[in-house]
Amino acid sequence: MQLGMIGLGRMGGNIVRRLMQRGHACVVWDRSAEAVAALAAEGATAAASPEDLVAKLAAPRAVWVMLPAGGPTEDTVRLLGELLSPQDVIIDGGNTFWRDDVRRAAALRPKGVHYVDVGVSGGVWGLERGYCMMIGGDAAVVRRLDPIFAALAPGRGDIPATPGRDGRDPRVEQGYLHAGPSGAGHFVKMVHNGVEYGLMQAYAEGFDILRSADSPVRPENERFSFDLADVAEVWRRGSVITSWLLDLTASALAQDPRLDAFSGYVDDSGEGRWTIQAAIEQATPAEVLTAALYARFRSRQEHTFAEKVLSAMRKGFGGHVERPGGPSAADLAAASMEGRT
Amino acid sequence: MQLGMIGLGRMGGNIVRRLMQRGHACVVWDRSAEAVAALAAEGATAAASPEDLVAKLAAPRAVWVMLPAGGPTEDTVRLLGELLSPQDVIIDGGNTFWRDDVRRAAALRPKGVHYVDVGVSGGVWGLERGYCMMIGGDAAVVRRLDPIFAALAPGRGDIPATPGRDGRDPRVEQGYLHAGPSGAGHFVKMVHNGVEYGLMQAYAEGFDILRSADSPVRPENERFSFDLADVAEVWRRGSVITSWLLDLTASALAQDPRLDAFSGYVDDSGEGRWTIQAAIEQATPAEVLTAALYARFRSRQEHTFAEKVLSAMRKGFGGHVERPGGPSAADLAAASMEGRT
Amino acid sequence: MQLGMIGLGRMGGNIVRRLMQRGHACVVWDRSAEAVAALAAEGATAAASPEDLVAKLAAPRAVWVMLPAGGPTEDTVRLLGELLSPQDVIIDGGNTFWRDDVRRAAALRPKGVHYVDVGVSGGVWGLERGYCMMIGGDAAVVRRLDPIFAALAPGRGDIPATPGRDGRDPRVEQGYLHAGPSGAGHFVKMVHNGVEYGLMQAYAEGFDILRSADSPVRPENERFSFDLADVAEVWRRGSVITSWLLDLTASALAQDPRLDAFSGYVDDSGEGRWTIQAAIEQATPAEVLTAALYARFRSRQEHTFAEKVLSAMRKGFGGHVERPGGPSAADLAAASMEGRT
Amino acid sequence: MQLGMIGLGRMGGNIVRRLMQRGHACVVWDRSAEAVAALAAEGATAAASPEDLVAKLAAPRAVWVMLPAGGPTEDTVRLLGELLSPQDVIIDGGNTFWRDDVRRAAALRPKGVHYVDVGVSGGVWGLERGYCMMIGGDAAVVRRLDPIFAALAPGRGDIPATPGRDGRDPRVEQGYLHAGPSGAGHFVKMVHNGVEYGLMQAYAEGFDILRSADSPVRPENERFSFDLADVAEVWRRGSVITSWLLDLTASALAQDPRLDAFSGYVDDSGEGRWTIQAAIEQATPAEVLTAALYARFRSRQEHTFAEKVLSAMRKGFGGHVERPGGPSAADLAAASMEGRT
Repeated sequence: MQLGMIGLGRMGGNIVRRLMQRGHACVVWDRSAEAVAALAAEGATAAASPEDLVAKLAAPRAVWVMLPAGGPTEDTVRLLGELLSPQDVIIDGGNTFWRDDVRRAAALRPKGVHYVDVGVSGGVWGLERGYCMMIGGDAAVVRRLDPIFAALAPGRGDIPATPGRDGRDPRVEQGYLHAGPSGAGHFVKMVHNGVEYGLMQAYAEGFDILRSADSPVRPENERFSFDLADVAEVWRRGSVITSWLLDLTASALAQDPRLDAFSGYVDDSGEGRWTIQAAIEQATPAEVLTAALYARFRSRQEHTFAEKVLSAMRKGFGGHVERPGGPSAADLAAASMEGRT
Repeated sequence: MQLGMIGLGRMGGNIVRRLMQRGHACVVWDRSAEAVAALAAEGATAAASPEDLVAKLAAPRAVWVMLPAGGPTEDTVRLLGELLSPQDVIIDGGNTFWRDDVRRAAALRPKGVHYVDVGVSGGVWGLERGYCMMIGGDAAVVRRLDPIFAALAPGRGDIPATPGRDGRDPRVEQGYLHAGPSGAGHFVKMVHNGVEYGLMQAYAEGFDILRSADSPVRPENERFSFDLADVAEVWRRGSVITSWLLDLTASALAQDPRLDAFSGYVDDSGEGRWTIQAAIEQATPAEVLTAALYARFRSRQEHTFAEKVLSAMRKGFGGHVERPGGPSAADLAAASMEGRT
Repeated sequence: MQLGMIGLGRMGGNIVRRLMQRGHACVVWDRSAEAVAALAAEGATAAASPEDLVAKLAAPRAVWVMLPAGGPTEDTVRLLGELLSPQDVIIDGGNTFWRDDVRRAAALRPKGVHYVDVGVSGGVWGLERGYCMMIGGDAAVVRRLDPIFAALAPGRGDIPATPGRDGRDPRVEQGYLHAGPSGAGHFVKMVHNGVEYGLMQAYAEGFDILRSADSPVRPENERFSFDLADVAEVWRRGSVITSWLLDLTASALAQDPRLDAFSGYVDDSGEGRWTIQAAIEQATPAEVLTAALYARFRSRQEHTFAEKVLSAMRKGFGGHVERPGGPSAADLAAASMEGRT
Repeated sequence: MQLGMIGLGRMGGNIVRRLMQRGHACVVWDRSAEAVAALAAEGATAAASPEDLVAKLAAPRAVWVMLPAGGPTEDTVRLLGELLSPQDVIIDGGNTFWRDDVRRAAALRPKGVHYVDVGVSGGVWGLERGYCMMIGGDAAVVRRLDPIFAALAPGRGDIPATPGRDGRDPRVEQGYLHAGPSGAGHFVKMVHNGVEYGLMQAYAEGFDILRSADSPVRPENERFSFDLADVAEVWRRGSVITSWLLDLTASALAQDPRLDAFSGYVDDSGEGRWTIQAAIEQATPAEVLTAALYARFRSRQEHTFAEKVLSAMRKGFGGHVERPGGPSAADLAAASMEGRT
């Protein structure tokens, strides 16, 4: 079927490519004329503007918006709401906050324009592996778009079936889920990313503990110098903690065992924050997901003001003057104890 | 080659079976005569006692101890230290604290008896999938035992090779790692389990947030009733958070979507605690792994004393009397706000 | 000066009492006629309705709203916005979310009605000790209300002056702070409560560790049975951790050393949640304040769904069946180790 | 009565001074001859060596050791165990790990030498305010030393009595507690410090949230520039979170509102680590105390290896290249949203 795509960055471009590879027709627009030309050269129909894109689609239209969350997506959805006709569908495939989906769907409903939110996972690997999609919107509209979703999804592949799923929605095993009404897709994707942060931090802390296991506070025969690339690799092989994130870590460590190429500054893209916000609204404890988020916040500061407050108090009650760079008092005490035994 | 096995529980028994399937000879003993008889019926040589087991092995002997960590393993290792001869090897495949390995290896060294610690992951699936092993001890001794480890390991299978590993130790890709000197095997396995706790908690919190997403503090159009079995399934398909633990979760949810069969009481087996202890000794922050451990501690109490202290303070400064079972003040305020908009 | 008070619960009633004790005139209304009559008997002027209250105040009027946050306060502020005249002031002394203050102040501004938000700490002790107040709004309006704030504040009392404050705003040492524009008062009060949660949880965990220090996993001579009432008392006397919250805890423990009167269900009133929400918006890590909030969320559930997910995974990979009530595997291993030494 | 003091640093020296001010006789030794001479000039009896100190004390002797925990204290206690006679007492007033107390007391018991562990709080203020002491050891021996403890303790002062303490041990209200057998004193002091870390971190996070409340991700009318010195001061005045630590913070902020004099590197002295170790052994969840400890660990590193692992994974699945120094993707999205409304 035919799909319009606005936003031809890494994600949007590859989604168009995967659709065209599977026989779908795409009309594409991006504020970068080069991006449009590049995809036109691969077989897409170039549009000169959003208006042109809408004009080049046959009704009922489906326009996928794949732009940065926030202003760019918001503005584009609003514009499309004006350009489109009843029965047309706007698909927001970006990292949108789920409440924005709820609001937009309600705003578009009186006009008869449908709104479908799609959380997309798969990153830069999606073109090859397929995209895992979590979809919110009216069931009939999601059903109408099925050829698109089926083409983008990874399909069953050689992933073993889960026992006990007989009789359940077969789309899910293809890699796409109609999760519920508007907002439900991005809500599930948001929690997906929250979980992702937690998983990443769990591995990261484990490798950090291993890396510092040759701590001088321990006696010689209790210090270990692990080959982290080998540890990551062996964990891929029959352990309980195998995962794709571990595969990626093993690959990174094999190429750069000390990860010297990385600064340690870690960004976050919003979903982790919204996940915690949802947890707190619902009074659901989420210690691990929150700690993972805070580790990223902390990574982006040289020192927090909180740490200075601690130092100020320590000076106040104990006359302590902190010594950046030296071993801690506890390390000294421990090392001293070790030397004794 | 020939191996003695002491401890024929789920793990020990299946290790013997996998070894025999691959042509190795096993002499087995357990304090349960039935367990010994069962494996003898499958081809193992039965021993009547540890002494008998030692007598039935040809020198240099290798005896694998697969018993509960703590007293049972400790007593058996000590006994074997008395029964064995120079060049013989004791293999501790249990969940032993790594410092006990360091101590035992040092104690056995004067006698010429070798000690090898093996952290084994793979659980009840190991017989079929193979065991992921993390090994500590002298390199030459670990090399001598290679036929055993190679037989137990999962082998390369169809797991894709990690780019950049050319020239590295090929054993690792088979699923076993010589991690370092005595204690190194159990140290890596310990951290593996610490990471496991963190990963599990990350998924668990994510599903909890999804499950409570129909919270009555939200207006109707912001509540979602997710099918958690479907969510778990779709995440297995091309998402960033695919893993074996997720496969297991998807299977559990497919069979019991509300997990009513589970009480929510969650045990811990020691490695998670030791991981945190190591992190603290080394001054390595490990927020996520620790939070995951504490969630298990908390799950095993009806109420903590800490919570009663909170209630006592709240009564003290605010006259608050807690109302078990009712909505929280914050929920009421939120619901009240929502009703207004 | 003259003040109108709407809401004569514990807080509102005592604020009126303290003002009247210090010579101010109060016109009071509450939907409970009894509450109005009670304060009228103590010298307040009774109003029959909000309209009547406004009518009985001389312009420029000041009306303090002391109602539950959310709907009741919102509705009352809106009504007052209609009843009042330019230069009149609405004071919201409740636990309002600071963004609601920002919104309300902006909505009232075109009418010329001022809005002042006051975060009030001091709880049930305020009548006697005075109230600590954090105030947001236009400086001139806050200045106009100074007699009210000065009367409610605790005053310098015998609290030692802080060195280095010469030349600073003297109101602060009296116990009230003009923190900034609209919303600033409730923002500071919100963080105050967030900090309060963290402090409370720190003490609570400390007492919990002391209470369980006679754990059977330790050998006899490493177990302690502490008298928690005495511990709390001695910490009040020259230690680094003296505080009013500790005073309250010492009092509670002296009367009920095991705190058997408390269920352990712990409520939260909203500010703790908003504090974390603000932290996350600002990317400020707040591990301790968040953990304190989650401990309360957790206290209100018998078991979380997250815990059931953990149990389901453990059964999946290890065949573990959890045993509610029994000692943990780690406890058994530890106890076993101890018996050995 | 007469007391020997070994270790004349800030703590040991002031303890001697306070004892002499209250009429007790002190024999003092330190490896620094200058420190000995200084106290001798104030009235103490100088000793030339530990042996000389013992010789100058009348039996039954009491020798207080006030040295860094670990090796220095251990060596000195061992030496005193050789020099002293039955009925003599060694008092360890340092920051010793409680298990070392249990071990030492057991080792000294056959010789008839008593061992008393004293956790001392009060820091540099103790000379003036008195020391809060938590004491472990045999009841009769602690009773014998009562004149010493009574002189060091702050006494009742003007701290209000706790209701409900009638009939309880009156020493506690003087500021010293016989907490239990050997090790109990340092155990209570250890938890005191663990709680101290939690309290400090709670305040620190609160001030950090306030300091960053003018975050550019918020629209203009939702940004606040708080005077933190004033906030700290007003919280001292009738709020729920008054404390001595807050007094110190208010003082520090009054003198240096941005705390520019502090690097933010925060040391830890061991007790916080041991508190968590005890909590984990006992399976007592301690989220807040642990998070406070980890914040200090984190403060002493430029970047953790864990953070590099996160970056490596992000590059692996998303092609993300981190941009140190720039705003986060989430901040950009938020700012973008705000500009829109």
